[in-house]
Amino acid sequence: MNLEQIISSIKQKKSYLCVGLDTDINKIPKYLLKTADPVFEFNKIIIDATRDLVIAYKPNLAFYESLGAKGIESLRKTIEYIPNNIFKIADAKRGDIGNTSTMYAKSFFEAFNFDAVTLSPYMGKDSILPYLEFKNKWAILLSLTSNSGAKDFQYLNIEGSNNKLFQQVIKNSLSWSSNKNMMYVVGANRTEDLIKIRKTIPNHFILVPGIGAQGGSLKNVSINGMNNNCGLIVNLSRSIIYSDSSKNFEKIVREKTRNIQLEMSNYLSICNVL
Amino acid sequence: MNLEQIISSIKQKKSYLCVGLDTDINKIPKYLLKTADPVFEFNKIIIDATRDLVIAYKPNLAFYESLGAKGIESLRKTIEYIPNNIFKIADAKRGDIGNTSTMYAKSFFEAFNFDAVTLSPYMGKDSILPYLEFKNKWAILLSLTSNSGAKDFQYLNIEGSNNKLFQQVIKNSLSWSSNKNMMYVVGANRTEDLIKIRKTIPNHFILVPGIGAQGGSLKNVSINGMNNNCGLIVNLSRSIIYSDSSKNFEKIVREKTRNIQLEMSNYLSICNVL
Repeated sequence: MNLEQIISSIKQKKSYLCVGLDTDINKIPKYLLKTADPVFEFNKIIIDATRDLVIAYKPNLAFYESLGAKGIESLRKTIEYIPNNIFKIADAKRGDIGNTSTMYAKSFFEAFNFDAVTLSPYMGKDSILPYLEFKNKWAILLSLTSNSGAKDFQYLNIEGSNNKLFQQVIKNSLSWSSNKNMMYVVGANRTEDLIKIRKTIPNHFILVPGIGAQGGSLKNVSINGMNNNCGLIVNLSRSIIYSDSSKNFEKIVREKTRNIQLEMSNYLSICNVL
Repeated sequence: MNLEQIISSIKQKKSYLCVGLDTDINKIPKYLLKTADPVFEFNKIIIDATRDLVIAYKPNLAFYESLGAKGIESLRKTIEYIPNNIFKIADAKRGDIGNTSTMYAKSFFEAFNFDAVTLSPYMGKDSILPYLEFKNKWAILLSLTSNSGAKDFQYLNIEGSNNKLFQQVIKNSLSWSSNKNMMYVVGANRTEDLIKIRKTIPNHFILVPGIGAQGGSLKNVSINGMNNNCGLIVNLSRSIIYSDSSKNFEKIVREKTRNIQLEMSNYLSICNVL
């Protein structure tokens, strides 16, 4: 999926919502456990209930890898089930030396047909470049995360610059490619920093986790982070997919998703994207 | 495996060699492709040819994940095949928020029975702690890697300290736990920095990749990095496992491994570990 397609999808659906498919077999409605592949069955219902309201899905790989070969198969079927015009993000937070990154990139982009993968910047440029060689595929670099550990290293001041590490990650990596195949992760609870980051990267998309279960505010993120093309993909996971545990959970899931999409539609109007 | 068992294994085998099972189906001897599970068959032969000469095996997860569910099954069988008294490292370079880290930790330590996992420090303390809650299991934190991208962020000077980022990673994380369940990754081509790191962490084990294919010197690493209990696990991957492609490749693999073990035995004597 290319930049224009993402923007067009946002404008058409009046939504910049990504649903995190962090499917934990211990948290899904019990009746699904009788099916042959409960994780896939759950994901299928979530996708059917939300596909017209969201522009992206983001499975966190940990939830699938922890189930071994069976989990990988559930993931493969899930990605295959997601419609082509929806952006598919592998939340993998990988980062390895060049030849290994190439292997991961092939796995995510070719074997699984993901559109994007989240990456950790610690190992630097040559650990990221292999992901940038695939046409219409995206590298999404961690910059400032929503967890408390962000303060341990991401907020360290870098000598000889006015930057903290998370800013240096953005500034250095800007020369690696463009807003046509790179995005950055910024946690929803970092509004002050999001404003500064938006000034540094006026045209890049920012993937924002941490709304809902992690306490960030959709309004703050939207008003402070949006650019003319929206420039935001906001992720919600647990607060949507586990919003109900009854046999008809898809109704509550859809209602919840619809309310968020309506709120997003409002912010898109306020910020003159629509 | 606990610290004493690792040290005892090193003294008994006169070796601190780890073989990286970075098994690429395109690089293994062609005759194996006829078997039902070529990746596992190859690993089995490598393990049988080297098990008395090495103290650890380290599969890089990318090589298995890129083969989908089948690769995960090859990995599971490989780990099961490695004798109990050999240290099993998942080279995964993970790093995610707490609840997701817990999921990865369970996957590596319980489902796969790995002894250790390599982790990226970027997301800080709460992304690492879940791995430290498992008895006799290890977190191996990236500090200074062997690739060229290490200079992009790991060498940045941190304001208000005399540390570069890779040193700050070690200093901050020292308070998270002890040398009984944490190790650090330092690339073999970073001898000058290895000397400084050894002064900061006299008692921790250091996992050293980058010998062989990546150009580091075993002698330099050993003389400069060893402590009284050895304190080093040195990894070689490609230069051992792909040292021959004939039908009898295990002979060359064993010879190559034996030569490195003999060299290691010599350094263990010189440094008064034996």
